[in-house]
Amino acid sequence: MNAIARLIRPRSIAVIGASADPGKTSGRPVSFLQKHGFSGEIYPVNPKVDRIGELTCYRDVEALPAVPDVGIVLLGAEHAHLAVRELAKRGAAAAIVLASGYAETGEEGALRQKELLQAAGRMRVLGPNTIGLVNLTDSIVLSASGALAMDHFPAGSIGLVSQSGGILGALLSRAAARGIGLSKLVSTSNEADLELSEFIEFLAADEATRVIALYVEAIRHPSHFREAVQKARAAGKPVVAFKIGRSEAGAKAAVSHTGALAGSDRMYDSLFRQLGVIRAKTFEELLDIPAALAAGRKLSGKRVAILTSTGGAGTIVSDSLGVAGFETPAPDTATAARLASLQSGSHANLDRNPVDLTLAGLHPDILRGAISALLASPSYDALVVIAGSSAVGSPALLADAVHDCLPESDKPVIAYVSPHAPNVGAALTARGVPAYTSAESCASAFSGLLLAARSAPAELASSPERQVHISDLSQGSLDEAEAKALFARFGIPAVNERIVETSNEAQSAARELGGKVVLKILSSEITHKSDVGGVAVNLTPDTIGSRLNAMADDVKAATGQRPRRFLVQEMVAGGAELILGMHRDALGTAILLGMGGVTAELIKDTTMRLLPPQGGLSGGEALSMVHDLITWPLLDGFRGRPKADIDALVSTIVAFSLMAAQLGARLIEAEVNPVFVLAAGQGVRAADGVVVLGPVGG
Amino acid sequence: MNAIARLIRPRSIAVIGASADPGKTSGRPVSFLQKHGFSGEIYPVNPKVDRIGELTCYRDVEALPAVPDVGIVLLGAEHAHLAVRELAKRGAAAAIVLASGYAETGEEGALRQKELLQAAGRMRVLGPNTIGLVNLTDSIVLSASGALAMDHFPAGSIGLVSQSGGILGALLSRAAARGIGLSKLVSTSNEADLELSEFIEFLAADEATRVIALYVEAIRHPSHFREAVQKARAAGKPVVAFKIGRSEAGAKAAVSHTGALAGSDRMYDSLFRQLGVIRAKTFEELLDIPAALAAGRKLSGKRVAILTSTGGAGTIVSDSLGVAGFETPAPDTATAARLASLQSGSHANLDRNPVDLTLAGLHPDILRGAISALLASPSYDALVVIAGSSAVGSPALLADAVHDCLPESDKPVIAYVSPHAPNVGAALTARGVPAYTSAESCASAFSGLLLAARSAPAELASSPERQVHISDLSQGSLDEAEAKALFARFGIPAVNERIVETSNEAQSAARELGGKVVLKILSSEITHKSDVGGVAVNLTPDTIGSRLNAMADDVKAATGQRPRRFLVQEMVAGGAELILGMHRDALGTAILLGMGGVTAELIKDTTMRLLPPQGGLSGGEALSMVHDLITWPLLDGFRGRPKADIDALVSTIVAFSLMAAQLGARLIEAEVNPVFVLAAGQGVRAADGVVVLGPVGG
Repeated sequence: MNAIARLIRPRSIAVIGASADPGKTSGRPVSFLQKHGFSGEIYPVNPKVDRIGELTCYRDVEALPAVPDVGIVLLGAEHAHLAVRELAKRGAAAAIVLASGYAETGEEGALRQKELLQAAGRMRVLGPNTIGLVNLTDSIVLSASGALAMDHFPAGSIGLVSQSGGILGALLSRAAARGIGLSKLVSTSNEADLELSEFIEFLAADEATRVIALYVEAIRHPSHFREAVQKARAAGKPVVAFKIGRSEAGAKAAVSHTGALAGSDRMYDSLFRQLGVIRAKTFEELLDIPAALAAGRKLSGKRVAILTSTGGAGTIVSDSLGVAGFETPAPDTATAARLASLQSGSHANLDRNPVDLTLAGLHPDILRGAISALLASPSYDALVVIAGSSAVGSPALLADAVHDCLPESDKPVIAYVSPHAPNVGAALTARGVPAYTSAESCASAFSGLLLAARSAPAELASSPERQVHISDLSQGSLDEAEAKALFARFGIPAVNERIVETSNEAQSAARELGGKVVLKILSSEITHKSDVGGVAVNLTPDTIGSRLNAMADDVKAATGQRPRRFLVQEMVAGGAELILGMHRDALGTAILLGMGGVTAELIKDTTMRLLPPQGGLSGGEALSMVHDLITWPLLDGFRGRPKADIDALVSTIVAFSLMAAQLGARLIEAEVNPVFVLAAGQGVRAADGVVVLGPVGG
Repeated sequence: MNAIARLIRPRSIAVIGASADPGKTSGRPVSFLQKHGFSGEIYPVNPKVDRIGELTCYRDVEALPAVPDVGIVLLGAEHAHLAVRELAKRGAAAAIVLASGYAETGEEGALRQKELLQAAGRMRVLGPNTIGLVNLTDSIVLSASGALAMDHFPAGSIGLVSQSGGILGALLSRAAARGIGLSKLVSTSNEADLELSEFIEFLAADEATRVIALYVEAIRHPSHFREAVQKARAAGKPVVAFKIGRSEAGAKAAVSHTGALAGSDRMYDSLFRQLGVIRAKTFEELLDIPAALAAGRKLSGKRVAILTSTGGAGTIVSDSLGVAGFETPAPDTATAARLASLQSGSHANLDRNPVDLTLAGLHPDILRGAISALLASPSYDALVVIAGSSAVGSPALLADAVHDCLPESDKPVIAYVSPHAPNVGAALTARGVPAYTSAESCASAFSGLLLAARSAPAELASSPERQVHISDLSQGSLDEAEAKALFARFGIPAVNERIVETSNEAQSAARELGGKVVLKILSSEITHKSDVGGVAVNLTPDTIGSRLNAMADDVKAATGQRPRRFLVQEMVAGGAELILGMHRDALGTAILLGMGGVTAELIKDTTMRLLPPQGGLSGGEALSMVHDLITWPLLDGFRGRPKADIDALVSTIVAFSLMAAQLGARLIEAEVNPVFVLAAGQGVRAADGVVVLGPVGG
């Protein structure tokens, strides 16, 4: 049995610093272990006390009669490391350190945390600053959370890992009150040693766990996280994550324009999406969605039947489902007839959806008949049953009726409880019908089920057809021509252009290129050419000469330096302007795609994908980026516009991602801005670009 | 005392069809009246029963010993009208009819509802299909709602009107469980007679009511609603409304393009916004926001302090506040010093926000000190206190501490309860600190307070400077030239143009206008000119002649009719293209403004305002429409573009609205599309338009 398994299912537990007063925080763990039925050995350690209740209390860890699997360390940060050292010496699998005053408080604390780890040696440490863990499957509570003062916690199939201690108590008590059964809860907190991903892996293999829920503050090891989630998905266990930090989105400054649009929260969004992790948008959803998943039923479509005995609540649920993209079609003729045959009274509305039984909903037989009819109907993929005010007086009525009908179908069934009637909700949830008190939660539950029904993301990476030669590249900013030359090596075509130094050369170049041309200064130092008067469009061989001289004067006036070299480029007519870029932070490297133009800029019409651990983005992923754009219809023939060359755009995105993958950390900045996407069959043209390279091996 | 006052504060109540079995729905009203302490006379009416408990039961209404103020009619739809007639005859103020089977079921029911009203004569009727009303101020429950089985309902200052019966029970029980005090609850349901607005007016004058909350399905009398809300606002009482039907938005087909973008739900949105009604976005907000308003504190800014003893919950609240646009700045130096002086232990984070007291938060003195410091700090406009898992064991700790400090400041203070601890939340709410279990609710509460702090909308209407002469207008579609001529009468300038019939005339017109011109067919029948080849741009005197002939051929081919008349128009260079339109439905007439162009169309960049009862939109309202546009920066100098002539645009919107106001129902359709807004000082130009007029007096 490995250390994590011994930590979560210990046969013996030392509680160092245990108090005999269960009212004190340090008195809680022993009291909670006993209260919630731990059947193994408990060894309280406290030199000042002889006994705690029936239990012998030991002077120190050395004095323990046997090696404990786990030590809960309740000492302050000043002494915790001493107990940890003793536990390690005795051969405990892990120590749980509750004290605060470590890395979360600043530099001094970080040093203290390092010492703590050193004291642990090869023994594993949970925490510090943790509230511990709770194993509901085996009735083992290794925690001081005040929430454990509650008497009963239903065991179930949701495994929960929280990077906050207080949140563990909140989730534990909220789930219990709603009748939602959990398997294990772990608070990893400071993650000096044991971290999120290790517990995801544990839960992926844990028989009692069917759904994994995460409270995330920061993923410290993205590659471990990827692997752990993939193991969970491979085991058929959906992963739901609530990540805080949504309002910090966009706060981080980034190097390139497109990078600036990618706050780190969007990076998390991409990571979750790419791994098939269902992101809970609110803290409530972190229980709402797992509760629906734990019922173990798959949602195969968006058509929902609503059965109610109270009109208003049915309307609220129907409205929220509609906002979330679900449909609530009226019953088909056969189903309506079957409902009508229930003889439920003349005022019931049985040919509409919500199906409103009115007072007849209080008759168990009619209720059962209506549930059966809706579950059997080919018009629906799922059912919401609604408990009205009458449920306050008869809490079991609805729960029994639904529970009896569940075996008739494998469609998801959830409940909405309209009045305040927590016992009704808990009874429903405990009987396999997840119950909600908000219509938005009902919609979230179904949305989560739909996401979970998608197969785990398959082949994420693309490989280069051939390795591109890059050993000649040196460090620093490339000028525009060099940047586009680099893009071209990876297969991104650029506009036709010539480098010139004089008016005469510019005229010849314009003649060669034909049609209207663009003139730009060529410099690796000046990145915002327009701002210094370094760009002119719509030129002809006749006008370009004098324009070059005027431009040289303007740039000199603006920058103090007369430009030496210029680019003469063909002017691309038509086509859509897009932007390709990249963004890198602790979570990885992302490829960004944005629509060009002022309106798209105003609405921040961009999307991003993280590079997979190896290789570039797959074609499918690149195409999904294009479809993400709000203005995607502009590329797809909207209002009679020509369809754009999506194949070429997808190849370009993949090529750009392969460049980012091959250059790795050397690529400090890269942007193609704009890339013109021409009409179908006519390809794309990179019209400008920026590349900044770091040192080799950097 | 008027009829509504007698209905809500009756001294005597007849219960027609009362059952002696309190388990039956028809047994509830008498049982609930007694249980919740009604001190007046109760007259049960039931020919089959002699007594109900201590009460004499009467054969029929005629036999009652005195005239009841109110009769609760529990008979089915087949007999209810008979009881109603008898009550009217005796001189009761109002009847409450619970039976269903009326207008909500179809035509037959609508007829039955009409008969019911006739039977009532001048007596007022609440319902039918209502669950009744509850007057918590005076402990009078005129309702059969199962939710009244609960024992205690705190009385308070929130008056509630619901257009659904079941929702009344849901709100009543949910509010009670949270310690939220209500004054009156009325379920108007079918609104055969008494309707929403009459109860809003009653509550506006009701001393016990400080906040008015509405559950709205449809506003049947928009003008009454306006007046009632204005009375409430004038009495200093904020109005909060939850309106179902959000997902039906856009479902209604409308005549003109811009009209199609305005679903009826957007009309409600506009009405609420223009009247200063705070719209609850979810059913939860219909209690969350009034609970915050009922505490009676005004929010004057967006800077929120968060005080916690559990880090995770503080982060969740901070994150949600951030998403909703609130700020959570760190404490100023003086406040940080005051917090530090509390000696709350070395690990507390007192110079950040959330201010995390950690375990020191369990000491009442430290808690009080921290609350005082944050309330006194000039850095904050409001405070959120957080109850962590320890609150489960000591529910009064936080409530007492906050309550003690409230008199020190008039800033709003709310609470977030992290674990499941309903008694903690209810204790806080009852002591003047509205408590929430979701971070989004905290944000909603503050957003509601901010909206309520805005003064009631002032002068809404603009009046025409002079009455425009319209008596010459006849019925039907105007052609483009006529439409623009009508716009011009109201002060909307159009592009320069000439009506022509031949190539020669077109050439002369083009020469007169100068520059490039546009050629269009002129027809009152063909509204989509481009679709039939009836528009050409970029023409000169040299090219326009042949183009006219070609166009005539094209249009003939497309429509079967050779166009007889054409418009030659100046081509407007530069400027932004916008669209002005109107939409009319049961709620009133709205003026629409939209940005032109494909991208704006994709993102549906439109906004709307309802016309006031008299006159057009005010200049301020018109300007606020311009500011509503997502792409407003495009008019405001974004990325070096010229600033648009906003004054002229505002005048044009006002002029268009005055036209709609003066023409009233005669104006079936009107659209200026596009209107070019030129650079500041250069005005606007209507370039095309549609007008359809109905008959005079229509």
